[in-house]
Order: sequence, then C-alpha cells, then structure tokens
Amino acid sequence: MTTGNDKILLAHGSGGQLSHELVERLFLRYFDNPILAHLDDSAVLEVGGGMQEARGKKQEAGFLHPASRILHPAPDARLAFTTDSYVVSPIFFPGGDIGKLAVCGTINDLAMSGATPLYLSAGFIIEEGLELAALERVVASMAATAQAAGVQIVAGDTKVVDRGKADRLFINTAGVGVVPAGVELGGDRAQPGDAIILSGTIGDHGMTIMSQREGLRFDSPLASDCAPLHGLVAAVMEVTPQAVHCLRDPTRGGLATTLNEVADKSRVGIEIEEDTIPVRDAVRAACELLGLDPLYVANEGKLVAFVAPEAADAVLTRMQAHEYGREAAIIGRVTAEHAGRVVLRTALGARRILDMLVGEQLPRIC
Amino acid sequence: MTTGNDKILLAHGSGGQLSHELVERLFLRYFDNPILAHLDDSAVLEVGGGMQEARGKKQEAGFLHPASRILHPAPDARLAFTTDSYVVSPIFFPGGDIGKLAVCGTINDLAMSGATPLYLSAGFIIEEGLELAALERVVASMAATAQAAGVQIVAGDTKVVDRGKADRLFINTAGVGVVPAGVELGGDRAQPGDAIILSGTIGDHGMTIMSQREGLRFDSPLASDCAPLHGLVAAVMEVTPQAVHCLRDPTRGGLATTLNEVADKSRVGIEIEEDTIPVRDAVRAACELLGLDPLYVANEGKLVAFVAPEAADAVLTRMQAHEYGREAAIIGRVTAEHAGRVVLRTALGARRILDMLVGEQLPRIC
Repeated sequence: MTTGNDKILLAHGSGGQLSHELVERLFLRYFDNPILAHLDDSAVLEVGGGMQEARGKKQEAGFLHPASRILHPAPDARLAFTTDSYVVSPIFFPGGDIGKLAVCGTINDLAMSGATPLYLSAGFIIEEGLELAALERVVASMAATAQAAGVQIVAGDTKVVDRGKADRLFINTAGVGVVPAGVELGGDRAQPGDAIILSGTIGDHGMTIMSQREGLRFDSPLASDCAPLHGLVAAVMEVTPQAVHCLRDPTRGGLATTLNEVADKSRVGIEIEEDTIPVRDAVRAACELLGLDPLYVANEGKLVAFVAPEAADAVLTRMQAHEYGREAAIIGRVTAEHAGRVVLRTALGARRILDMLVGEQLPRIC
Repeated sequence: MTTGNDKILLAHGSGGQLSHELVERLFLRYFDNPILAHLDDSAVLEVGGGMQEARGKKQEAGFLHPASRILHPAPDARLAFTTDSYVVSPIFFPGGDIGKLAVCGTINDLAMSGATPLYLSAGFIIEEGLELAALERVVASMAATAQAAGVQIVAGDTKVVDRGKADRLFINTAGVGVVPAGVELGGDRAQPGDAIILSGTIGDHGMTIMSQREGLRFDSPLASDCAPLHGLVAAVMEVTPQAVHCLRDPTRGGLATTLNEVADKSRVGIEIEEDTIPVRDAVRAACELLGLDPLYVANEGKLVAFVAPEAADAVLTRMQAHEYGREAAIIGRVTAEHAGRVVLRTALGARRILDMLVGEQLPRIC
C-alpha cells in the first residue's frame, strides 16, 4: 500500500480523499467481499441467502448440526448492518452529546439503506478518571434517544484505558435493521434526470463543534442538527418507494463529498445550484470567519435524496411536512454529462467543479 | 448512581466486581430492556417477533410503509448480535494481535449463544502517527482470521484522533449470527447435577500479555490461546444440543469470574476441583513470579460448558477430538447447595470460596 506517506494522518479520518484511499487500498483489498465493496452506509445482508451460504461452507468444516436445518427465514428478509465509532470532542455540545450522536448516526446509516432500525449495540472506551456523572449523562442521553426512536440497545461492552491513553470517552455503535421487500437503495442507483433533494440546512453540526473548540460566540447561537432520520425516510418512502433511488446522509466531508461519492459510484454527473442550498446565517458567518466552505462541513441530521423527476414535488412536499425536513429543497439534478463530476452553479451563474474534501478540515467532528 | 467513587477507575473495565456494578447500576438502568438484561455474551433477537413489535410501535409514529408488510421472516429465525471493543497493549503479541483478537472475540461471543457467526463489522480508532505497515499487518490478520472462520467483514468505519489522544489502535467488532431453531443456551440455564467441562488450559492469554509488558522471559515461551471457537461449539452441539445448557468463554476476570456469573444467574452452587484444571507450566511459573492466580487470568480461546451429566463423557470425548479442545477436562459440577457461590476443592482437600475478581489485575488485556 502506498498513499504517499507511511503513517496515519488526521486526514485519513476526514471522510474525504485520504479516507477513501485508505478504504480502497487497505480495507477493501483485505476484507474482500461483494457486500463491503458496495460501500453504502449499511451492509444489506440476505439472511436467507446468507444461511444457505453458511450452510454450504460450514458443512465442510463439520459445523452444521441437525437443528439448524429447521431454520428457513423468508427469502425476502434482508438485514441491514452498520457500525460507526464516535470520538467527537467536546463530548457535550449545543444540540447533543457523543451518546445522542452515536445513536442517531447508526440509526441514520440504517435508514439510508431503507431499513427499519431495530437493535443497537454500544461499546464504550473510557479514559480512567472520567467523571461518573458525565458517563451517566451520556448513557441517559443514549437511552432517551433510542427510546424516542423506537430502537433497543441490546448489547454492550466497556473498556477502560489508563489516563492519557484515550480522551475521556469514545463510543462505538453498531446497528441491525430490516429492509422491507422491494426497497432497493444504493449509491450506485442515481439516474440521469433524478432530482436531488436536500432535507434542510447544511453545516450546523460541524460549525457548532468548531465554534465550541474555538470559543466563538455568535448573535444567533449555533446548535448541532443531530437527529434520527428514519421517520423522515419512512415518510419519503411512503410517497413512492420505487421513485427513490438513493439516500445519503452528508456527514464527514459534507454535502460536496457525499455528492462526489454518488457521482462516482453511479457514473453520472451532478449539477447543483448554489442559491438553492439552505444555510443558516450563523453557520454562514462562522464559515466566513474561519475560511470554510459550508459544502464541506459535516451534518448529523440531514439527508440527500435522489428521486425520479416525476415524484420530486410529491417527495419534497412530504419532507417539508416532517419535523426534520421543514427546510427541504430541490438543489439540483443528475445528468448524463460529465459522469463522475459534481458541478456547482453559483448565484452569479458561474460554474465550478466541486471536488471531494481534500485534507482534514476539522478532526473529531463525530 | 453510587459506586463509592465519582470517577471511572481501571477496575471498572476489569470484567470483575466493579464492571458488574457499572453494568447493573448504569447501563441496565438506562438501557432498560429484557434482551440486554439477560447479560449473555450475545443478544438473541427474535427477528420475526422483533418485526411484529417494530410494526406495532412504528405504526403509531407513522413509520410503516406498505412494502414492509410483505416481510415475514420465519418465526423460528433468531439472530445473535454482539459487540466488543479491543484496547489490548501491545497490539502485537505471541499468538496473535489486536485484529485476530477482535475477530475471534466476537466470533466467540456469538458461538457462546449457539449461533453460527456470519457477519462482522469493524470500527477502527487510530492514533495519528500509527505506521501504515502496522495497520496493514492488523487488517491482514483480521482478514485471514475471518476467512479461516468462514465469516465476512461487511461493514467498517475509521476514525483518526490526534496524537496522544488514543494509544496506537483500538478496534471495535460487532457480529451477527443465526441461532438454529431449538438451541437454547444461557447463563441462567445451568442445572444442579450438570458437569462443568473446560476446553483446555487457563491463563495463557493474560500471562502472555503481562509477560510482554513486564519483559519477562521463560524457558518455554508463552503464547496467547486466541482462537475462534465456533467450530468447537458446533462439534459439541452435534453430540447433543439439548444436553448443553450453557457455554461461556472465560475472558476478562478469568475462569473464577465466569463461574461466579453463572452461579449467580442460574441460582446454583458450583464446585470445582483444583487439580483437574489444566495450567501450562510456563503460565504457572509466570503467575507465581507475579503473585497472580491463574483462575482470574483472561483466556481468549477457551470455553466452559455446563452439560447434563449423562452427556458429559460424550461431550468431553468430542471436545478432545477437536483442535481447540485437546486438553479439555471435567473440572467440577453444579450443585443445589450454596446457590450463587463457587467453591474450590484444593489438591489437599481443603475447600475455599472463589469470589469474582475484585479490583483490576491487568488493564488492557483485550
């Protein structure tokens, strides 16, 4: 493996260019299987098919015992399975905390595959000396978020490392959901003509964390948009499951990176209109102050939907009726031209190519 | 919550007394659900039942969309779901590395519930500056271990934290498996009269890590027993699925802590014979040098089976025929007397009560 450097850099965790290189040159090369190769937010597993396969493989190894022959899940039962670790700093911030973020983030990864989230696991890596009260506050927040979202935290693990070997608290969540029959979403399914619908303002989460760290104050306070999106996804899918081709939540790397991923995987072009993209004034002000582009700033409660043009207005209306989609907007469309590239039309009519995030804008954003 | 201290101590991660208090007083209190309350190595989920339940709950929230009504997994399809984080130091050691440990550990947690392990996720938290070659070596080891075990790593995540905010590499793995119909294992199912069968020597993993850290050398070198045990479990279940009541892998806290957990959850007594418990000479020597009791030292490739007495010999013979069970031995039995307590009969015939691990013997053992 060569990434032009022999050590891990912060940018390897940015969600941008170096992260993609690491995934492709290391993880995909070794963990070589078609499910992982999809690189969607969740792995979608055919449990029926999986069982068949496991049966074939294990029989050779003498694994299969008679009882397992009784098991025959319906062939259309598919599981979604996903994981994320959270290392956000600080662990408490306006609009959320590391626990709420971990629960919402995993719910959202499941929801982006069209799955109904059902069960979560939670793994805690704790630095010796963390105040029990802080841990309790995080755990209570996870429990409340999970309960409100209708998911259960059913498995957990705690490790403690000596002082100075971690930073207060890291949390990993993994999640399992069920993908309804007939639902087929994927980063490789966007089609020329699709409308691109963004569910609301961008940059809120990232600029909140950055402002906390930099000690910035604004007239209208910033807050993370951290929220569970499975209800919004369900509302959208209710309108027209077949017309929705792809859902993504633009987290690390921001909207620009997410759009680049879809343009690349679907081998299509993407054109978006700058002045249709909702950005809060406080976020815009913070971005200007720090020299950042909101298109590259992380979100934790937003999604982008790629929808067949004839269904776009109905999906938009339904999104706007949902509490997490009130400021939804159609921000662009998918084209057959310039496949693999994302083009931004500025308010003044100029066109510029939007690349994937390069380097690291803000470590430990999530 | 009061644990007599207002900060997290290393012993909260020991797997012993303080870990149990943290789970009961914090995690179980907030993540309040009957599945987690089992505290088995994996959560066993009724996917059929889970769907029904999710359906009921989500309909209120307007979640259900028509397509999901088509999904009806067989009512006897149950999933096992588990997670563990790994923070072992050093990350490479004789007999394994943090990656092999993470894959085997999660496979083993699934196997202890009687599940066929199918899919794993892998979340990496990397300290800035880790050599790419070290990461590649770990990833290659995970891939080789997963392939040999017939499981697929289908979901992953990478986070990088700034130098000094983690220690080289932490890995979380979560796993999904399918529990064959009719298999019912649990820490609350041990019955008076059950034979207790240990699959091999104890203390190998823990003393290997400790010797590495202390720079100790012995005539016969120590190596971790880190191994995937699902094949051994399958072999045992083939003999007689109904006679096996409980399987546990004695990791953090060692054999003594695991036996205490089962005695407590099953409300039974346990008696074991000291001179039947296999311990390698090098492990015994290292323990003596460091003043440790091998009964409390972590294992990563061993299991304890609670088996109906009439099937004990057949299960023992089958274990001894398997590569990971060659030194298996019957080490004791379950009693109706002294419920909740574990009693050790020493080689000299004395009886002493074996408590759960108190304090922290060795942080970051796994």
